[in-house]
Amino acid sequence: MKKPLRIGLIGYGFMGRAHSNAYAKVGHFFDSDYECVLQAVCARDEANLKTFAGRWGYKSIETDWRKLVARDDIDLIDIAVPNNLHAEIAIAAAKAGKMILCEKPLALNGREAEKMVAAVQKAKVPNMVWYNYRRCPAVVLAKQLIDEGRLGKIFHYRAKFLQDWTINPDLPQGGTGLWRLDVKAAGSGVTGDLLAHCIDTSLWLNGNIDSVSAMTETFIKERKHNLTGKVQKVGIDDACAFLARFSNGSLATFESTRYARGHKALYTFEINGEHASIFWDLHDLHRLQYFDHRDEGRVRGWRNLHVSDGDQPYLKNWWVPGLQIGYEHSFVHQVADFLDGLQSGKPARPDFKDGLATDYVVDAVLDSARSGRWTKVKKIR
Amino acid sequence: MKKPLRIGLIGYGFMGRAHSNAYAKVGHFFDSDYECVLQAVCARDEANLKTFAGRWGYKSIETDWRKLVARDDIDLIDIAVPNNLHAEIAIAAAKAGKMILCEKPLALNGREAEKMVAAVQKAKVPNMVWYNYRRCPAVVLAKQLIDEGRLGKIFHYRAKFLQDWTINPDLPQGGTGLWRLDVKAAGSGVTGDLLAHCIDTSLWLNGNIDSVSAMTETFIKERKHNLTGKVQKVGIDDACAFLARFSNGSLATFESTRYARGHKALYTFEINGEHASIFWDLHDLHRLQYFDHRDEGRVRGWRNLHVSDGDQPYLKNWWVPGLQIGYEHSFVHQVADFLDGLQSGKPARPDFKDGLATDYVVDAVLDSARSGRWTKVKKIR
Amino acid sequence: MKKPLRIGLIGYGFMGRAHSNAYAKVGHFFDSDYECVLQAVCARDEANLKTFAGRWGYKSIETDWRKLVARDDIDLIDIAVPNNLHAEIAIAAAKAGKMILCEKPLALNGREAEKMVAAVQKAKVPNMVWYNYRRCPAVVLAKQLIDEGRLGKIFHYRAKFLQDWTINPDLPQGGTGLWRLDVKAAGSGVTGDLLAHCIDTSLWLNGNIDSVSAMTETFIKERKHNLTGKVQKVGIDDACAFLARFSNGSLATFESTRYARGHKALYTFEINGEHASIFWDLHDLHRLQYFDHRDEGRVRGWRNLHVSDGDQPYLKNWWVPGLQIGYEHSFVHQVADFLDGLQSGKPARPDFKDGLATDYVVDAVLDSARSGRWTKVKKIR
Amino acid sequence: MKKPLRIGLIGYGFMGRAHSNAYAKVGHFFDSDYECVLQAVCARDEANLKTFAGRWGYKSIETDWRKLVARDDIDLIDIAVPNNLHAEIAIAAAKAGKMILCEKPLALNGREAEKMVAAVQKAKVPNMVWYNYRRCPAVVLAKQLIDEGRLGKIFHYRAKFLQDWTINPDLPQGGTGLWRLDVKAAGSGVTGDLLAHCIDTSLWLNGNIDSVSAMTETFIKERKHNLTGKVQKVGIDDACAFLARFSNGSLATFESTRYARGHKALYTFEINGEHASIFWDLHDLHRLQYFDHRDEGRVRGWRNLHVSDGDQPYLKNWWVPGLQIGYEHSFVHQVADFLDGLQSGKPARPDFKDGLATDYVVDAVLDSARSGRWTKVKKIR
Repeated sequence: MKKPLRIGLIGYGFMGRAHSNAYAKVGHFFDSDYECVLQAVCARDEANLKTFAGRWGYKSIETDWRKLVARDDIDLIDIAVPNNLHAEIAIAAAKAGKMILCEKPLALNGREAEKMVAAVQKAKVPNMVWYNYRRCPAVVLAKQLIDEGRLGKIFHYRAKFLQDWTINPDLPQGGTGLWRLDVKAAGSGVTGDLLAHCIDTSLWLNGNIDSVSAMTETFIKERKHNLTGKVQKVGIDDACAFLARFSNGSLATFESTRYARGHKALYTFEINGEHASIFWDLHDLHRLQYFDHRDEGRVRGWRNLHVSDGDQPYLKNWWVPGLQIGYEHSFVHQVADFLDGLQSGKPARPDFKDGLATDYVVDAVLDSARSGRWTKVKKIR
Repeated sequence: MKKPLRIGLIGYGFMGRAHSNAYAKVGHFFDSDYECVLQAVCARDEANLKTFAGRWGYKSIETDWRKLVARDDIDLIDIAVPNNLHAEIAIAAAKAGKMILCEKPLALNGREAEKMVAAVQKAKVPNMVWYNYRRCPAVVLAKQLIDEGRLGKIFHYRAKFLQDWTINPDLPQGGTGLWRLDVKAAGSGVTGDLLAHCIDTSLWLNGNIDSVSAMTETFIKERKHNLTGKVQKVGIDDACAFLARFSNGSLATFESTRYARGHKALYTFEINGEHASIFWDLHDLHRLQYFDHRDEGRVRGWRNLHVSDGDQPYLKNWWVPGLQIGYEHSFVHQVADFLDGLQSGKPARPDFKDGLATDYVVDAVLDSARSGRWTKVKKIR
Repeated sequence: MKKPLRIGLIGYGFMGRAHSNAYAKVGHFFDSDYECVLQAVCARDEANLKTFAGRWGYKSIETDWRKLVARDDIDLIDIAVPNNLHAEIAIAAAKAGKMILCEKPLALNGREAEKMVAAVQKAKVPNMVWYNYRRCPAVVLAKQLIDEGRLGKIFHYRAKFLQDWTINPDLPQGGTGLWRLDVKAAGSGVTGDLLAHCIDTSLWLNGNIDSVSAMTETFIKERKHNLTGKVQKVGIDDACAFLARFSNGSLATFESTRYARGHKALYTFEINGEHASIFWDLHDLHRLQYFDHRDEGRVRGWRNLHVSDGDQPYLKNWWVPGLQIGYEHSFVHQVADFLDGLQSGKPARPDFKDGLATDYVVDAVLDSARSGRWTKVKKIR
Repeated sequence: MKKPLRIGLIGYGFMGRAHSNAYAKVGHFFDSDYECVLQAVCARDEANLKTFAGRWGYKSIETDWRKLVARDDIDLIDIAVPNNLHAEIAIAAAKAGKMILCEKPLALNGREAEKMVAAVQKAKVPNMVWYNYRRCPAVVLAKQLIDEGRLGKIFHYRAKFLQDWTINPDLPQGGTGLWRLDVKAAGSGVTGDLLAHCIDTSLWLNGNIDSVSAMTETFIKERKHNLTGKVQKVGIDDACAFLARFSNGSLATFESTRYARGHKALYTFEINGEHASIFWDLHDLHRLQYFDHRDEGRVRGWRNLHVSDGDQPYLKNWWVPGLQIGYEHSFVHQVADFLDGLQSGKPARPDFKDGLATDYVVDAVLDSARSGRWTKVKKIR
């Protein structure tokens, strides 16, 4: 008999769906001693909540997250609500002894995130942050190649995350579906939303960032706010680019924007090492570009890997070579790895501490953009 | 309350998994009056079957398909076993008044398929063939563009399906996982397995094929047979290519092989019309290449469409622009469309009659390869 | 002192320019004991001819090719006129003891080509056919890889040459710039014009073709003729596709058309061998795609070679790595190789005999299209 | 009769060849009242010089550039020597009343470049800088599209120029072929060599840069110097990245390195505007990627333009659609445009003043990298 892991999900938006799908699906494709049980889902709009619960098979609903956190029949709290609510919920959940899976970025800033880390450490509860792109097979393959030393000394890291959905000045800010444009709910714009992904991946693949020099811009200065109905100043950054120096001596450029026509969700990274280079692109996430200088000169070129073979990460659990998996699978993998961590006693990552490390970089980036100076990144103690 | 659609699946191999996933998932993403219920799964190996049933949540198992077909609590029989078993099961299921979803190719040949068509027509049961690639969003988009007349008169159709998994002469034939290499179980090699997909799509997109000139080859003449343990003649075609003339006056080339190094499941098609052209490739199935000659000359080029937007087929039911879906989703869509067909009274296709049409082309291709002559394709009455 | 090689060019059309550029440029980039001298150019329209001669620095002009062939101060006759004139000029030039470079296809058909071969063999004059794509660095690299045995046994060859410039039914046939649409001048349509290139390359890379099954089509049945001013039947093939069996046991598909929207000059070939595969595309002629199955599984993928390094064919004579060369360079290389052949005594190819081999295949293709049967290709004695 | 333009070239290295080819070839493909005459070439090594002169047909040689500049039979001085010699030669040539074509970057720094600008302005001699990438057809097409307003307001500019040829620490610095690694000869590393190209293009396409924040790195600190034979400190920057703000409000990132494995000469730029985006890549310089948001949603995607059509810049002078031209053609175009400028009285650009503007940005970048601060770019008076 499998051990039930009773999930209490807070939030039924885009991420609520992605997480629900992961819980529903993981057991069909990955073995575990644990079985995810969709015990309860929580949100404020009861009518919508019931529809959502019915569709996904949640056994019960709550409209107050405090009640959900207090329930005895919940093992794990999954936080899939706007950023400004993460800290309070997570700290309460930790106090209640629940495992916690929290959407990214971990908090509005490093200060908040530190408290969350303290809370889970004190409570000794398993915890993880939903930086799901670490679980794309091609990204894990990149990690393997780096860890095997194939790239040698790293000279360069470059990442960007480009979108184009907020160019229209008539798009309002705030409220359902648009809280990411409201600085109170989101904390920042593309920096905390998109660059946080790029930063998390980079810390995982390339180690610590020492210092950054950043610039940000808000192209559309005012937008109607959906909650107040008034045209208000836009507080978020529409675009952000920064230079960085990693502890391993490599140089980096990072950039994100929601004003890049033609790019829907173009998260790319490239790493150039002494011997080899790697490139990945979320728009074709099942592919990895790999260049190995040790190949014979005449036939040396970027290898376009179709990451769908059984000897590539996670793939033996899916279909057959040549058949691609997609975005949602990264969440399934994250749950599978979380369950493996529970079973093995080696917790899966990124945990809250990793989330804090990314928040420290985000803080430094925003500070640098304000001050116009190179800014040191706070280190995790 | 939704109406339960009680599924009885026969076969738990690769396709059994793909279908099970579709049933399990369709309700999470698509609305319907019907709800798929995983009522029973059937196969001969009871131990494996129990594991499979447990993993997917099937309520019961059967080890004899006749018993499954005879059960009152089954509404739909899903046939996911080797080709040589399709006809007998389907005909029995039709007689028992069951709806039928049958894996492709419909039958070992047109003669068998005719009987299956007759059976479902007599029984008036809903029926469909799992030519799932019709349900890739990019392929449906291609269909829309053609139906809207954007391509104008069609001059050329070219399709290929290239793999490389049987080049090793030590690979045996027959038995679990390798029945596709055994002519008794499969009927033919790449022609019925892979070209059948290409043909089905082409009939849907470009209308009837009148005549073909084909060649086939078996590169490895003998392989050990897993069921007999002996080295036996290989009866299937390892490769097949054919020229074709469509009724609309366009010329076509089709090719398939399992001896094309570097290609895992490279199904591609291209259509050239008077005004526009389309190209699709299963290895990047979320993309469609589209060229429109009506674009202004200086900025005319192939458009690389990332088919992930809400206004593109099926996509509003999934994630957000830029986030790709994969192979398995084509099966989910097929079930969604089947359920829509039940609800609306306009049955989804390809039905058995469409499957028969493809089998007629397969027959003509194999005949032509044997005779060395152009061969007319039998028409559906 | 270099030995002068005094060129007499016949024809100043597109090919006349490409050849003139090759002669003018070869000495700047390739070493040789020979120096190309632009001695004379010949065509009927004297005014245009003078302009052309002035632009390129030809020392003299002729309006009658017989006079040119008769001149003592000409070492080499370059035939760059419509196909129906090749044989007569070449035979006369051979009799006059001139070296001959002839545009492709060598002749209107194999019968004519046989006479040309006989003439140059009798006269013992150096001779070559302008199948220039053999001289693209990426194609030569493909040849090297094959000759080194990297592909192993070859299973498949596929080539196509797609254009879209004759879709407009108002385009006339015949006369300057359009003689390729006039069957009297061209002999055939895409088969002799475009497929001849594909065939020549394939014979070089993959050996003899034994037999073919072909279809051709003329989509626009009548066009105004520029020379008569009347609407006349179109005698050429607008499109041609054929299946082929090579002597080495590999299967092939070939296709060409001028009705493929979106393709300007898309000559592609792909070769699948036991161990490795190769793909090339004229639209990006400085690239070669190479897949090697012996690469380690996890990092196995198509290598996208940017053929611009000094250790790749011809490249050390040009710029530096990363800087691409283009179409016209293939002609420069052909002249360089021709000069090398003169110097070394090992004549460069394709010579007239190779041109004849291609014409035999063209003949078989056209015969098969007429008869609807598999047709054997005549062998070179 | 054409007017002779008597060229005196100084330097016979890589750039000397590229320029010579341009002079030799321009008249074959472009009409002009002027005719380039290869009058003299100058360098110190007489033996090599004679070989070079013979190969390209220069009528005379000089081993002292001052003598060349003093000659009456020279109309134009072409400076193709290391950067540290540009200013002195150019100023002398201007005083001698010669037209001047100078390799890029114009000078070691803005201060020197200012003097060169003053000299040519005083002497009123035609002048140009060899930023040849402005003359790639695809780049000119980008310029046209921007000038036509198709992109609308520009939000982002990003450029990089990546190479990998100096990763080997055993590579020496200084002397023939390696002066770019010697700070005395080159002035800086990738900033003046590669980023200068990126900056020049960007100023042309996107207007002035106001301020920059940069970082540079020298990965290999010491290398043997070819001229002294000793291991010496490396003074150049191996890599440089900078953030920039353009006067039009757009944000930019620039990066260059010679430590990016897999990239030979990967100069790319991308521009994101309100309505459309553009991407170009030197590795496939005959292509331009264009995205237009005004395309209908379902068929909106990046258009991959094969820039080889007669209605695209420069192309009607070359071959036919589909046949690509390469790197060297950019120099031919630059000479053609220079001649057009002479003829029309509207001088071609980039002239020395444009070269100065780029040097000002280079200065600001290097200053910022030293100071760690945002640095304002000096404006051209």
